Amino acid sequence: MNADEFRRAGHELIDWIAAYLEGVEQYPVLAQVQPGDIRAKLPRHPPQQGEPFDDIIRDVDEIIVPGLTHWQSPNFFAFFPGNSSYPSILGELLSAGLGVQGMMWITSPAATELETHVMDWLGEMLGLPEAFRSTSTGGGVIQTTASTSTLVALIAARESATQGRSNAAGVAGGNLVAYTSTQAHSSIEKAIRIAGLGSDNLRLVEVDSGYAMRPDALAAAIESDVAAGRIPAFVCATVGTTSSEAIDPVSAIGEICRKHGVWLHADAAMAGTAAICPELRWLLDGLDAADSFVFNPHKWMLTNVDCSALFVRDRAALINSLSITPEYLRNQASEAGAIDYRDWQLELGRRFRALKLWFTIRTYGVEGLQEVVRRHVALAQEFAGWVEGDHDFELAAPVPLSLVCFRHRAGDEASEAILDHVNATGRAYLVHTKLDDRYTLRMSIGQRTTERRHVEQAWQLIKEAAAEVAR
Amino acid sequence: MNADEFRRAGHELIDWIAAYLEGVEQYPVLAQVQPGDIRAKLPRHPPQQGEPFDDIIRDVDEIIVPGLTHWQSPNFFAFFPGNSSYPSILGELLSAGLGVQGMMWITSPAATELETHVMDWLGEMLGLPEAFRSTSTGGGVIQTTASTSTLVALIAARESATQGRSNAAGVAGGNLVAYTSTQAHSSIEKAIRIAGLGSDNLRLVEVDSGYAMRPDALAAAIESDVAAGRIPAFVCATVGTTSSEAIDPVSAIGEICRKHGVWLHADAAMAGTAAICPELRWLLDGLDAADSFVFNPHKWMLTNVDCSALFVRDRAALINSLSITPEYLRNQASEAGAIDYRDWQLELGRRFRALKLWFTIRTYGVEGLQEVVRRHVALAQEFAGWVEGDHDFELAAPVPLSLVCFRHRAGDEASEAILDHVNATGRAYLVHTKLDDRYTLRMSIGQRTTERRHVEQAWQLIKEAAAEVAR
Repeated sequence: MNADEFRRAGHELIDWIAAYLEGVEQYPVLAQVQPGDIRAKLPRHPPQQGEPFDDIIRDVDEIIVPGLTHWQSPNFFAFFPGNSSYPSILGELLSAGLGVQGMMWITSPAATELETHVMDWLGEMLGLPEAFRSTSTGGGVIQTTASTSTLVALIAARESATQGRSNAAGVAGGNLVAYTSTQAHSSIEKAIRIAGLGSDNLRLVEVDSGYAMRPDALAAAIESDVAAGRIPAFVCATVGTTSSEAIDPVSAIGEICRKHGVWLHADAAMAGTAAICPELRWLLDGLDAADSFVFNPHKWMLTNVDCSALFVRDRAALINSLSITPEYLRNQASEAGAIDYRDWQLELGRRFRALKLWFTIRTYGVEGLQEVVRRHVALAQEFAGWVEGDHDFELAAPVPLSLVCFRHRAGDEASEAILDHVNATGRAYLVHTKLDDRYTLRMSIGQRTTERRHVEQAWQLIKEAAAEVAR
Repeated sequence: MNADEFRRAGHELIDWIAAYLEGVEQYPVLAQVQPGDIRAKLPRHPPQQGEPFDDIIRDVDEIIVPGLTHWQSPNFFAFFPGNSSYPSILGELLSAGLGVQGMMWITSPAATELETHVMDWLGEMLGLPEAFRSTSTGGGVIQTTASTSTLVALIAARESATQGRSNAAGVAGGNLVAYTSTQAHSSIEKAIRIAGLGSDNLRLVEVDSGYAMRPDALAAAIESDVAAGRIPAFVCATVGTTSSEAIDPVSAIGEICRKHGVWLHADAAMAGTAAICPELRWLLDGLDAADSFVFNPHKWMLTNVDCSALFVRDRAALINSLSITPEYLRNQASEAGAIDYRDWQLELGRRFRALKLWFTIRTYGVEGLQEVVRRHVALAQEFAGWVEGDHDFELAAPVPLSLVCFRHRAGDEASEAILDHVNATGRAYLVHTKLDDRYTLRMSIGQRTTERRHVEQAWQLIKEAAAEVAR
């Protein structure tokens, strides 16, 4: 493919994407295929000679699209949203087109400096404490996902708690302890395993009736471990849990962490974006006491995956825990103190991901992004009202923002059957969780193009499914 | 930005990228800016209202491009290549446009199945052992970089060596030991630290005169640790080191690993692509004894970063070490045994990266990709001949493939001064390493558009710099 063929194919693909996104509502949200269906349509061996682009795009239409679950559909209410947007797509395209690798300042200064700058913008947009800015002691860095953001924060915490000895001598099993709530995301336990602390040394702290961490239970757990001679090393508070969007009391948790000198990480992967609205910024109350904070613009801030924003209060703690410099990476800029993001992450290599965030913030403006959050929160509150007003259903948890947890009053089996019915229609996609061991439906409202009519339709489908199940 | 504005902006950006890549040769390869130059041109605060796309693309031209180090330039000879290509750019664009998240089969079956399929294609293209295919006991998965590929292999090795006890109880410091050569990439030590084994428990095995690991030294190190009651858990052989592209003797290393029951990981991040040429497949001799293998299509296989291909012999070992299933991720397809790539990686979320690999392989065909590798290898051999024929310079290491290590006979200072001179011209970019503690220039030939005239020009610049330095 030469430059002219690329121009032609590129224009065609841009038009294809515009048409796909304009028409995505027409597809079944959840892919209606069986395991193996896609592979069965693909040739067993790679082609020896090159093929024309038209053949490839034909296969995209005929083989790939029918096998997709359409995350960009306005009828996608599952998990948490994985939003893309037009400017974000263009930012990703430009990143691929430039093909630069931003592992160090010298390997593309603009990739590093734009990232530092846009992360400071985000800090301002969310009202993060000054210490999280690059202009102070901290700064932000784009990671692949909240899982890896949490893992690097944990590594920094581990090394802070052991003065770098774990990196050198290894983790002494059973001595370092971490804490999070019973409602925390599975990525916390996964990080604890990867970093060598071990699941047995992760305390799952009890929650209150709204599924938020109980500070008294956290304090008791820490004190018990200290008394036993263990080293509390890491607390992860969740600002908007995956199951029910519960918001841990970061202020009270922070006081306990300060008292015991424990690293506090705040995981706001989904909910963090809401803090761009001043009236919702109470979410982040107490963040002054946190050492690290993560939220994912690739969930609710219209920036396509992967774009997880990690902020730290003390960048030196992070860099000291992750930096190794072989001869072939030495250069004068690094020695003069330029930011090398390879020392802020697990990987050495990295794409120029700041472009898509920059394109998105500039194209929408802060007000445009606020409008999206406000629309989703209002729709979720309205949906919660419909549930409350219906004698067959009940809310299963508070609805602080955009996630509505609810269930059928007839019990778990009815709720599960309703979910299966709704998803089988292809006109909406929801997933479930368990709260207090009861089967719970999750209505997560956060796709860029979701309007009131989509939420109304989903509620209608749920009601119809309930009637069907009752028969 | 609505769909029509996206069409217009998208066409404009496609044309911009085509023009950039056609003209990339004209830019100074290494960015000629000072730290802070880029940020000084960016507005301090994010915009409250949205801005038009034309303003953004103007800033790309005026602020971003002058701050880039141009990895796609045919005059880029630094580090290892970070190749992109036209079809790969389009694959990344489509991935962003679809915006699906392939963490599980159910969340987009086509994303999972295409990845499994294309990774099996790669296994066939490189002639990997049958066990590394999804149709056997193993399979491949796309990771962000070789760093994370190696880290997940190490986690699987750690759990295999301790029957899953490390995940549960944590890593017992000092008991597990890992081995790699003194020439291995820094990512190996970084992974050892992250996984809690500790740098002190990484043995850096001596190399031979060609910088390849000495199997006798490895055997001695393992036997010494076994005698001391430690558990050898992980050996990383390098197929093409970063400093000099040395190729560890995988067969002999594999025999030792089998004897002691140690997990063998082969890191062929750069060199692996060469195995698509039958005449170069000797590179991977002995891979039958390896448990995992990584190479990066984002280096030499024209697929833009990030696309690191990790293969394992026993997928169950990998999955068992990385899988955690909370209620909100449970679904029938997973329970029926569909591949969920979240259990093959650190992250939960993941982009649809198989598209760009599929686009690239189909557009070039296997023969088209072979032609690129052969061109680069031939150019490197020719360049090595020029060095050998010049009385001022000498080769510093064997040249098995595409990397030429050389130095000025006058010593380290002369070599360093030559590098600075050449890079300051902006007409080529090389980096250095140290071999036997001597300053060594690295001429890495692997960019898609690099032709003989670019290599000739670089040699001319080096000769001119040497003359300048001599004055």
